[in-house]
Amino acid sequence: MSATATATATATATATATATHRIPVGVIGLGNLGQALAEAFLTQGHPVTVWNRSAGKADRLVERGASLAATPTDAVAAGELVVVAVLDYDTVGELLRPAAGVLAGRTIVNLTTGTPSAARALGAWATDQRAAYLDGAVYAVPQTIGTSAAFVLYSGDEAAYRSYRAVLDTIGEGSLVGPAPELSSVYDTALLSGMYGMFAGFFQAVAFAGTEGIGAAELTRPLVRWLTAAADALPAFAEEIDAKDYTTTTSNLEINAVGLRNILSATEAQGLQTDLLAPLLRLFEDQIRAGHAASSLARAVESLRADGV
Amino acid sequence: MSATATATATATATATATATHRIPVGVIGLGNLGQALAEAFLTQGHPVTVWNRSAGKADRLVERGASLAATPTDAVAAGELVVVAVLDYDTVGELLRPAAGVLAGRTIVNLTTGTPSAARALGAWATDQRAAYLDGAVYAVPQTIGTSAAFVLYSGDEAAYRSYRAVLDTIGEGSLVGPAPELSSVYDTALLSGMYGMFAGFFQAVAFAGTEGIGAAELTRPLVRWLTAAADALPAFAEEIDAKDYTTTTSNLEINAVGLRNILSATEAQGLQTDLLAPLLRLFEDQIRAGHAASSLARAVESLRADGV
Repeated sequence: MSATATATATATATATATATHRIPVGVIGLGNLGQALAEAFLTQGHPVTVWNRSAGKADRLVERGASLAATPTDAVAAGELVVVAVLDYDTVGELLRPAAGVLAGRTIVNLTTGTPSAARALGAWATDQRAAYLDGAVYAVPQTIGTSAAFVLYSGDEAAYRSYRAVLDTIGEGSLVGPAPELSSVYDTALLSGMYGMFAGFFQAVAFAGTEGIGAAELTRPLVRWLTAAADALPAFAEEIDAKDYTTTTSNLEINAVGLRNILSATEAQGLQTDLLAPLLRLFEDQIRAGHAASSLARAVESLRADGV
Repeated sequence: MSATATATATATATATATATHRIPVGVIGLGNLGQALAEAFLTQGHPVTVWNRSAGKADRLVERGASLAATPTDAVAAGELVVVAVLDYDTVGELLRPAAGVLAGRTIVNLTTGTPSAARALGAWATDQRAAYLDGAVYAVPQTIGTSAAFVLYSGDEAAYRSYRAVLDTIGEGSLVGPAPELSSVYDTALLSGMYGMFAGFFQAVAFAGTEGIGAAELTRPLVRWLTAAADALPAFAEEIDAKDYTTTTSNLEINAVGLRNILSATEAQGLQTDLLAPLLRLFEDQIRAGHAASSLARAVESLRADGV
């Protein structure tokens, strides 16, 4: 970003030093997330101006004291902090482009989901307009926005992040993962990949147990306990991966290939598809064929990498 | 199981009412799990007799006071409770068959991993020998056996479970999931399916983040937090699945298909394989094609079922 925008952001930081200071916030996009965000800002007493393509979605917020902007540009102009949560980056561009003239000195917090390259391009454009840019992803279901269960990973302008940290924490506990605008979207894609993997395992588990008359709720009690325990093993895997040191002996690829092969056989024997987990076995087998049967399970990640070891 | 075995088990229950009562335990198989179990029993002061194909694995246990049996049959004969943790059910059968004459009145706790039908067959055979049979699966890494992090799901003879509950809790917090011997193995396959799904997601997440220079440990901190939070959503999915009521509007199949398609595109754009998560998208798409775009994400499980709705 430009030095001018940095200076503006720093000046704002001083002005917002007290937690009770009211920050005018513009909220563009009132889907589940946008509505929840606007509500959280209103609850904290900040003046909120909202815009949504179908204005009806603003009714409840206007009743609670929000102003309704006629155009996205009006919502930008009303906000010192402008939060955008719409369908995709194409929509963000379409809505913000006409507001280019009023962006200077403001901070854009874009919570729209997209690719790293789209975030990079939007961040560069916002900087050209002398706006500070933060890209963020909210990890919460709409019901938990504004509660301690929600957290948000931001990337981009550090001075702007520090300036608005108190307001942004209204959404959920924030952290800045780095200065490159696209980092938040990289984390987002990665974290959602992890979540979808867990969901795939959940569906497979429920379908399997169902073939022997075990109900989903009955299964899910020990399953959640086990997944939570197994998630605690991930930091040890991560250390091995960062060190590229896969010499552990507790849970090697061969043991896991045998175990997973048994699971897939049992799954087939119950008349179910094995599509969801079979690709993981192929990663194990690739590594075993390359001579790494005794290496840690964590080595499977190398099979996914273009330059895997 | 036979009425005789039940009577024996009930008599034992009375004899073992005090937690300090010493129960002779036979442990067959001294892999990671068997060794950890034998250690936990010794720590609790129970007389332990061990057997392993390669006797050297018993050295440390013998130093700690365990007796070494010359044959599996000797280990069975020395134990009122006989715990078996070997490679597979074929091995269990091979080791226990010669002990048929000394099994009556004892309780076999088989912690070997296998298929539901293998557990069913072994349970029936044990009952024919007038032994009480419990099939169990331990959810722990060897290091956490005997700690509060470990838990064990048993299925089979309820009277035997009650009799030996105090001893069995040495291994980890137990629960009996039902009377059919195979149920524990159904749970086991299901819970491990869930775990492998989570691991697949973890590998995909780490590989993706790595393409933008984010380290595995750095990523894993928010990832574990997010996976733990997302696991808390599973009971709500489970209720929908049990009720076959997928009318929720918060996270529908269409939104998730869009999200997952974006993840797969971003993954490809970074030069990575999408094999691990692409099959989950196909489940979503199957349901959407069948007219369920607005149904809850949980409906994806129906695509896995032979008789899915």
